[in-house]
Amino acid sequence: MVVPLCDRSEIFHSPAIANGYFTCAINRVGSETFPNQFTSGDGKPAHTEFGHFYGSSYITAPNGTRTPLCIKYNMVIVSPILERDDVTDIIWNTAVVINNHGRVMGKHRKNHIPRVGDFNESTYYFEGNTGHPVFETEFGRIAINICYGRHHPLNWLMFGLNGAEIVFNPSATITGLSEPLWGIEARNAAIANGYFTCAINRVGSETFPNQFTSGDGKPAHTQFGHFYGSSYITAPNGTRTPGLSRIKDGLLVAELDLNLNRQVKDVWGFQMTQRLPMYAESLTQASQLSFEPQRIK
Amino acid sequence: MVVPLCDRSEIFHSPAIANGYFTCAINRVGSETFPNQFTSGDGKPAHTEFGHFYGSSYITAPNGTRTPLCIKYNMVIVSPILERDDVTDIIWNTAVVINNHGRVMGKHRKNHIPRVGDFNESTYYFEGNTGHPVFETEFGRIAINICYGRHHPLNWLMFGLNGAEIVFNPSATITGLSEPLWGIEARNAAIANGYFTCAINRVGSETFPNQFTSGDGKPAHTQFGHFYGSSYITAPNGTRTPGLSRIKDGLLVAELDLNLNRQVKDVWGFQMTQRLPMYAESLTQASQLSFEPQRIK
Repeated sequence: MVVPLCDRSEIFHSPAIANGYFTCAINRVGSETFPNQFTSGDGKPAHTEFGHFYGSSYITAPNGTRTPLCIKYNMVIVSPILERDDVTDIIWNTAVVINNHGRVMGKHRKNHIPRVGDFNESTYYFEGNTGHPVFETEFGRIAINICYGRHHPLNWLMFGLNGAEIVFNPSATITGLSEPLWGIEARNAAIANGYFTCAINRVGSETFPNQFTSGDGKPAHTQFGHFYGSSYITAPNGTRTPGLSRIKDGLLVAELDLNLNRQVKDVWGFQMTQRLPMYAESLTQASQLSFEPQRIK
Repeated sequence: MVVPLCDRSEIFHSPAIANGYFTCAINRVGSETFPNQFTSGDGKPAHTEFGHFYGSSYITAPNGTRTPLCIKYNMVIVSPILERDDVTDIIWNTAVVINNHGRVMGKHRKNHIPRVGDFNESTYYFEGNTGHPVFETEFGRIAINICYGRHHPLNWLMFGLNGAEIVFNPSATITGLSEPLWGIEARNAAIANGYFTCAINRVGSETFPNQFTSGDGKPAHTQFGHFYGSSYITAPNGTRTPGLSRIKDGLLVAELDLNLNRQVKDVWGFQMTQRLPMYAESLTQASQLSFEPQRIK
């Protein structure tokens, strides 16, 4: 079911998402992982103040009582934030998971940091150090593959090995860059790993106060480009939902039968036949300075 | 360029594929990796006599001289065969690479063996022990990901780490089983690994003399089903050719600019950001009996 929304606040008030749904499958809200980048041009540090913590959202009752939305709607919230480590001063691209009782279960820090033109995040983010956690919610075991991490099959794999049944991929990515890959990567991950994937991208664009450029020969500009939305969910057998709009905020509500994960795994046997020990050894070798590729002349 | 062919013998005689082309991008010839399976029902060993060795094909000149086709057409041949190891008696699903001078460069044995209903090959094939070789031909560095190996992202990855520029995936796979995945997996592999992939599937069906069944409740039968062809090539940026026919043999001729591999890698940086040492360690841990998945309650 694809529900177009005009007012984003409706997302949290819609009965459609109450009782056992995750909120991350939301076109704009769940994908706003940290859109702002000023990597050059003004000498100031990158703007890092756009990380929203929707988990702290409240409903104010007529009597003034405030109730966390996750409790109000019996809903797990996946909340992308900017996290600054007080001890090390490292800034992380982090997703926090709050369960349907309002408890912060934990967090995951983005494993793979892009250096892709204007999407060079390496000046303010470091590679995550939280591994590949899977959160055991009442509604299923979930994991968060943050944004650029969707390009990395090994990232998807480790969430699977840790037992994920649904992997959310909150993204902020633009047309002309990743759009040709959008329908392929999260879908392949669902197939390869025998779980559901939720590919989430924001919609629209933002104008920044200062010009920036990645030195690619184009004039300095104040916008990244159009964030093309098109969020969709894929089942482990490769079937997928229609995508949300490219130009309008939307809400995608889907019922996922998690039994399908086991059924598909038992048909295809990708996990049983994947020979992990061989690849553990191969990747260990490939990580050594002394590695010599296997080439035949 | 997609060239329909009526007579398979034309494949080797077409000037379109002379001078620097690989022959594996051929709908039927390159994909006939070993179609016959009799896993139960008659008590006889699986029929294993259908492995063709096209590399031994010859042209007979009017004077009776025979010239290997790979020399005649300056062409590298990827030739799937059935290989029986004389020492160990193991049967392998093997692809042999013959260079354009008629020299056998080497071979690769299929790494991943399916147990998928009628495609249960585990009674007569073992998992390959030749690693992930890359063959340095005059026209580019190539590798062979045999059939079911396309479902395994780690298999694709290792060919990439060993330096493959083009990876061929000769397959024999049927409608109703893998067809929904066909357009996704090889395409994702090209994107993730920054090389070209050639997804090759045979066309048609075969009738076997004895009935077989995988005990799935369906009546015993003498056919696997329809091999749906649909071969295609994907570039590292995710663009792809049209597919060949689902019902007719065909020849797909494409010019691949291998410089695109480096260009795309430099734009996206997937290789630079992939954190191999972390995953070498993670897969090593996941391969241990003592492994405990990273789960958060």
